[in-house]
Amino acid sequence: MFLDPHYIRDRIRTVPDWPQPGVQFRDITPLLQDPKTFRVLVDMFVYRYMDQGLDLVAGVDARGFILGAVVAYELNLGFVPIRKKGKLPYMTVSEEYELEYGSATVEIHTDACRAGDRVLLIDDLIATGGTMIAAAKLLNRIGANVVEAAAIVDLPELGGSQLIKAQGIPLFTVCEFEGE
Amino acid sequence: MFLDPHYIRDRIRTVPDWPQPGVQFRDITPLLQDPKTFRVLVDMFVYRYMDQGLDLVAGVDARGFILGAVVAYELNLGFVPIRKKGKLPYMTVSEEYELEYGSATVEIHTDACRAGDRVLLIDDLIATGGTMIAAAKLLNRIGANVVEAAAIVDLPELGGSQLIKAQGIPLFTVCEFEGE
Repeated sequence: MFLDPHYIRDRIRTVPDWPQPGVQFRDITPLLQDPKTFRVLVDMFVYRYMDQGLDLVAGVDARGFILGAVVAYELNLGFVPIRKKGKLPYMTVSEEYELEYGSATVEIHTDACRAGDRVLLIDDLIATGGTMIAAAKLLNRIGANVVEAAAIVDLPELGGSQLIKAQGIPLFTVCEFEGE
Repeated sequence: MFLDPHYIRDRIRTVPDWPQPGVQFRDITPLLQDPKTFRVLVDMFVYRYMDQGLDLVAGVDARGFILGAVVAYELNLGFVPIRKKGKLPYMTVSEEYELEYGSATVEIHTDACRAGDRVLLIDDLIATGGTMIAAAKLLNRIGANVVEAAAIVDLPELGGSQLIKAQGIPLFTVCEFEGE
């Protein structure tokens, strides 16, 4: 059976000491590049969400655009980008969040959804959870109901998935990596 | 007939004076957000490329990821991201190109394709053409054959589409905007 999380996990590449010494970077590009694993990945999300009565899919800049856009298309839904500060041209709302050193800001267009829209929020990976929580806050501020946050990879040792659930946001991830 | 370029063009929003005074920014987010126009847009590309014997789709960071990933999935192909400098974790090749003020660099993983792969290159918009030409050079350097470069919008007054074609790269765009 191809729709097995191990099939996805085995095709993620670990790049040691990137972007800095001691970090094991989980690189999803080999997964996207192979037609069958890319299709299996998308279809896991399509099966999970096809009967959830969703109205919209939002994806987080930039790797979240890849999976988010395909899932939106396959579910016959629109796609909304949540972007880093200064990238969206129309009226926006912003959320700042803490990084290990400094902070970052994400934005969404104020007219990106209708009040009460049931939205699926997609990124590629959960580390500290800061981006996903900020993105969910943006969606709530413009009136959306975040049905679930979803990503390909969870890094549970960094605590982000627990923080996201503690905010009351349901979370789905396909596979996880411990430091190894 | 929905597969009409005007159907797409009419749903692109012009934001005046962004990101600076005098620039008319062509915002594709309303097009992506509406399920039917998003589907029509993707399907125009799918019909065009489904019988071209392609091996891979490459998308340019970040808006090119949205359309590129969906077209790859629909054609049963893999997807490769071409990213801004410092975003790809594995071995890369780089191309620097000129902007109005300063320069920018794009990168691709060295193992992003096999020699001779027939690749479709996708971005959202053609302005000066610098990014698209640099992206095509990257693909050529790792052994790919760029079958066509494609985008949603052409801004012909900025000359990019002419420069791309002058490099021998076939180009397809859905619609164009003159300064208005």
